[in-house]
Amino acid sequence: MTSPADRRAQVVGTGLIGASIGLALRERGWRVTGRDRDAARAGRALALGAVDELGTDPAAEVTFVATPVSSVAAAAAEALAAGPGLVTDVGSVKAPIVAAVGSPRFVGGHPMAGSEQEGVEGADAALFEGATWVLTPDDRTDPDAFARVRALVAGLGADVVALSPERHDELVAVVSHVPHLAAATLMGLAAEGAVAHAALLRLAAGGFRDMTRVAAGHPGIWPDICAENRAAIVAALDRLVVALGRTRDSVAAGDRAGLLALLEGARHARANLPSRAVQPEALVEVRVAVRDRPGALAEVTTAASALGVNIANLDLAHSLEGDRGVLVLVVAAADGERLRAELAGRGYRPAVGSLG
Amino acid sequence: MTSPADRRAQVVGTGLIGASIGLALRERGWRVTGRDRDAARAGRALALGAVDELGTDPAAEVTFVATPVSSVAAAAAEALAAGPGLVTDVGSVKAPIVAAVGSPRFVGGHPMAGSEQEGVEGADAALFEGATWVLTPDDRTDPDAFARVRALVAGLGADVVALSPERHDELVAVVSHVPHLAAATLMGLAAEGAVAHAALLRLAAGGFRDMTRVAAGHPGIWPDICAENRAAIVAALDRLVVALGRTRDSVAAGDRAGLLALLEGARHARANLPSRAVQPEALVEVRVAVRDRPGALAEVTTAASALGVNIANLDLAHSLEGDRGVLVLVVAAADGERLRAELAGRGYRPAVGSLG
Repeated sequence: MTSPADRRAQVVGTGLIGASIGLALRERGWRVTGRDRDAARAGRALALGAVDELGTDPAAEVTFVATPVSSVAAAAAEALAAGPGLVTDVGSVKAPIVAAVGSPRFVGGHPMAGSEQEGVEGADAALFEGATWVLTPDDRTDPDAFARVRALVAGLGADVVALSPERHDELVAVVSHVPHLAAATLMGLAAEGAVAHAALLRLAAGGFRDMTRVAAGHPGIWPDICAENRAAIVAALDRLVVALGRTRDSVAAGDRAGLLALLEGARHARANLPSRAVQPEALVEVRVAVRDRPGALAEVTTAASALGVNIANLDLAHSLEGDRGVLVLVVAAADGERLRAELAGRGYRPAVGSLG
Repeated sequence: MTSPADRRAQVVGTGLIGASIGLALRERGWRVTGRDRDAARAGRALALGAVDELGTDPAAEVTFVATPVSSVAAAAAEALAAGPGLVTDVGSVKAPIVAAVGSPRFVGGHPMAGSEQEGVEGADAALFEGATWVLTPDDRTDPDAFARVRALVAGLGADVVALSPERHDELVAVVSHVPHLAAATLMGLAAEGAVAHAALLRLAAGGFRDMTRVAAGHPGIWPDICAENRAAIVAALDRLVVALGRTRDSVAAGDRAGLLALLEGARHARANLPSRAVQPEALVEVRVAVRDRPGALAEVTTAASALGVNIANLDLAHSLEGDRGVLVLVVAAADGERLRAELAGRGYRPAVGSLG
């Protein structure tokens, strides 16, 4: 392994996320080259110390594409063509990007912190500490590329969750995109009423202010997100409309038990929203031979996520025979057997052991 | 006018709101008698100094009914039957209560602060300072009773807004009840997904947490609120479902301009949510003769609210002839002429002048 001082990274797009990655990497001794289609923003990133220099670095070990979602695929393809390094991105929609790029050296990513169009001025080397950072390997992803990108973003302090690109997009539609659109729609309804009645918004107390806070954000990124994640957003909005119709029918029918069940359930779920992941004290290794199994990496990591098993560390061990890869997943001791059984059910022959 | 030391009030229901009213009144020299169907809660209110004594006071000048909405009408009727004083309430739904009570001595009210079922432990004499407190006079309300209740709650530091009971219920359905139900429904959808996928809720970042915060509240009061405000909630949920359908169609059609308009509009409306009312420097009096006009009080005050004109003070002046009432509204100088023109258009003969 090269020493940190020799490691070179590239950041394309120096908004909040790109510049924060630059700051975090430089803090860890990397040399970072950056660029932005907005020359003034690139200049501010340089002035803030988020990059060592402006321009391109074909020899970069890894390129982070941190542009708005609609231009990620093109920027990633360009970086892949320019040099032999790995490429990852931070776009909030994954399936269309991963499908369009389609390279073993590309690992789709999405740190759940800030937004790719917020200002470089808010950049912070600590932005990702404790944040969830989703990586979305698919059948074409090289396991070694995945393991290296995974180690890199975990090194920035993030909790890494592996999901298939499609599953990621469905989930963020439910927990991010649709809530945002629903808040905006609700705010629009209230504002409509307010045209006829200025008193309306004086009545808007804390709950309404909380609910519509996201609607105060910059709208610019949303047409892109809605276009890129169209199918998942439409499906989730359809589910929300059906569920609201059920709520409406419960109110109309005076179904007290139904309403109470809805509200109790929501309260329970809200109270159990996980906060930052907790690192368990006892860990085990689950070793899985993945030779000749294309897509094994994606299958294994997304199976772990589906079980709710957090992967504390992941590495790809190459056997002496060369291509015989072994995935080494480090998980909580309490989760080892569950993960082993799940993978065995999928035809793998995993082994659980203490940390090597 | 009697001196504060002689003024006696009664509080029925000593939860957060009732106990806060008791504390605020006692701070202003009133003698407060209180009761609660939960004897332990009444005892805590006494221990906290929210009431002088437990029990009933048939000679109370005013009774505040601060019970859950479903029992307000019965408690108000009981207080009206027990003595000659005024009765007001703090229920979050108004039309069914005002219709059921139907007394000239009853003035419906709703302070937009806290909830009638939160604990007495959070009681605070300053709870209403700067908060909006809606009063809902109707055709049967005695203008003098309204003016006295108005002065009383304004004296607790609240900004008083007069609305018809029906209009109040429509507005709170939009800014409070439906947002609450929508947040719970959204939380339910996300939790459904989470059963199959524990990673889901790890992805729930700030916006989702903000939006669903209200879903963490006590569900107990909501079946009552939904029952009492059924028509307005169903109508507002229907509008939300239609509006979400339009948002969904914009996403499905890739209508970037439509989405941007929705989000820009919501952002603008959110940024313009009024905060606390500002007391203007220059004030004028608008005097309106209301003799022989039943419902004039409700019409005049709700017309002012509909114009967005804040009534800084309101009094009922009785002429020497006895029944010739004159409403005296104190409003910002900038609003005087607007209000006069509106009332003239409704057949009144208002006069604007400097403060008497």
